[in-house]
Amino acid sequence: MTETNLRILLARRPNGAPVPEDFAIEEAPRPEPKDGYVLVRHRFLSLDPYMRGRMSEAKSYAKPVAIGGVMEGACVGHVVESRDPGFSPGDAVLGGFGWQRFSAVPAARLIRLDEAEAPLSANLGVLGMPGLTAWTGLEDIGQPKPGETVVVSAASGAVGQVAGQIAKRRGARVVGIAGGAEKCAFVTGTLGFDACIDHRGDLEAQLDAACPEGIDVYWENVGGAVQAAVFPRLRDFGRMVMCGMISQYNEAPGADASGAPPGPNLGPVVRKRLRIQGFIVSDTGWPRYGKFRAEMLGWMRDGLVWREDVVQGLAQAPAAFIGLLSGRNFGKLVVKID
Amino acid sequence: MTETNLRILLARRPNGAPVPEDFAIEEAPRPEPKDGYVLVRHRFLSLDPYMRGRMSEAKSYAKPVAIGGVMEGACVGHVVESRDPGFSPGDAVLGGFGWQRFSAVPAARLIRLDEAEAPLSANLGVLGMPGLTAWTGLEDIGQPKPGETVVVSAASGAVGQVAGQIAKRRGARVVGIAGGAEKCAFVTGTLGFDACIDHRGDLEAQLDAACPEGIDVYWENVGGAVQAAVFPRLRDFGRMVMCGMISQYNEAPGADASGAPPGPNLGPVVRKRLRIQGFIVSDTGWPRYGKFRAEMLGWMRDGLVWREDVVQGLAQAPAAFIGLLSGRNFGKLVVKID
Repeated sequence: MTETNLRILLARRPNGAPVPEDFAIEEAPRPEPKDGYVLVRHRFLSLDPYMRGRMSEAKSYAKPVAIGGVMEGACVGHVVESRDPGFSPGDAVLGGFGWQRFSAVPAARLIRLDEAEAPLSANLGVLGMPGLTAWTGLEDIGQPKPGETVVVSAASGAVGQVAGQIAKRRGARVVGIAGGAEKCAFVTGTLGFDACIDHRGDLEAQLDAACPEGIDVYWENVGGAVQAAVFPRLRDFGRMVMCGMISQYNEAPGADASGAPPGPNLGPVVRKRLRIQGFIVSDTGWPRYGKFRAEMLGWMRDGLVWREDVVQGLAQAPAAFIGLLSGRNFGKLVVKID
Repeated sequence: MTETNLRILLARRPNGAPVPEDFAIEEAPRPEPKDGYVLVRHRFLSLDPYMRGRMSEAKSYAKPVAIGGVMEGACVGHVVESRDPGFSPGDAVLGGFGWQRFSAVPAARLIRLDEAEAPLSANLGVLGMPGLTAWTGLEDIGQPKPGETVVVSAASGAVGQVAGQIAKRRGARVVGIAGGAEKCAFVTGTLGFDACIDHRGDLEAQLDAACPEGIDVYWENVGGAVQAAVFPRLRDFGRMVMCGMISQYNEAPGADASGAPPGPNLGPVVRKRLRIQGFIVSDTGWPRYGKFRAEMLGWMRDGLVWREDVVQGLAQAPAAFIGLLSGRNFGKLVVKID
């Protein structure tokens, strides 16, 4: 029996935090590849915070998913049928295939993977968009120098775990911020950060204890109370790598509309010569993917670790994504497509 | 009869906006130069917003002026007596001589000026620290490209008037913000900006009219309501050149302590890939002074204009400085030392 194409659609735009009813699940026929197309059976789907933005109509750097459209996302999988001479059945590939079991896509949109080099799912995390995000933000904005203090929020997450380990390899002292004792123990014990702060405790006191000389680089994944506690502790010439502010992604009517809470007074930006800079990996990261991948594969051979949070079954993707937005995942969140 | 050394001292630390009683004026004997020193008779004193920071004890990038000490400031003047072979009476020089009529300083601390190249006082403005500030901030942070929209606050002031004219020469469309119709007419009519907004009117409506496509570069001199109106209008990849936030320099207990008003929510920094960066000209500007001066002298020959607000008599410096902090000056504020 031929597998159907299980697909998850955007049923309606969320009002605040997404709920299961914002998604619809359906079984469709397996698509047929046209000439020049390849049929891919997806093995893993990546779930990432940026997807929350795609669910809203608010103006952003990418177009929203249409109501009734398949949710966007990167997948790794195997070629099942190829109508392009460049690919054969069994080839491992990466692409923006969406929250579904199969896709028929133009061959030009596939990235070929080498399964001998790394497990398939690593291409969605440490070797994929999140890892490249960490590398690019540190290359272009954070630029940690030996002896500097780098603070990484969401430190056990997909981007944070890589950012901190890269900063360590650049010679910095790295302090993570994570939610709960278990994540903090992982951040110091397994990832090798120098310290980790539990954001459920007294942030200011813990930051003062972990960063007595202040903070040179802050990797921003979360915003909110963590940002408010870190900002006044930035040292002269400090850099804020503005990667995300997940704490407000569910705020209506959008991440940064008039209802958003205020931010820090910018007076210290002048006095301390701070640099606060945002970036999106698709602008500046992908053109340097080859350089990143070579460096990252070397670090992986030398002990850089990564943790995945693997959810079983595509039907669980909506619940897993909802949990991601409140920090319930532990490591890079991927869905194993049954 | 030999002139005395009229000097203006910091009598006490201001509580909020400085008042005349925060300063003391005294006549002291003319100092005597030691071996290797030069006696300089000052002709013009520069008054600049950064001096407010030097009057407070709050931690900043430079040490405060001591109570009873001579107020700090740059002056241009002429050598009266030299005990160094490198200088002769009559030489025109620039240095951080302070709010006084004479100083005896080590020859190494003097910068020699060529009066044939530009009027003496221009070395305190368009060719001096304010001009170099404008040039450095645009070189390193603003980086205006042809066709981009640049908004300059305090547009008729010492830094703003130069920043806008440089941005025009880099091919940008330049919109000034100034206080009152007279300054706005000067900004467009004399400085040649494309438009000017009166910050006493409806900022948001005027910005929408003058910058219908949004803002690529914002030169921040003022903070407060102007910053709040500009920030949401920044375009993707917009830059904020954080030069100063004069609207809060008088706020107790310091420019950026806990009492400061909140700033913008930083969500758009990620989404729009903004860069918000502070700088101090002494860090990065002076090493490139020669390059700046050559370029600026060329622009001055080609029609770059500058406006000075000249106050007569050193005794008027405190009142003029108090006025500077509330925007009462019109152009680069200098004191002619009688």
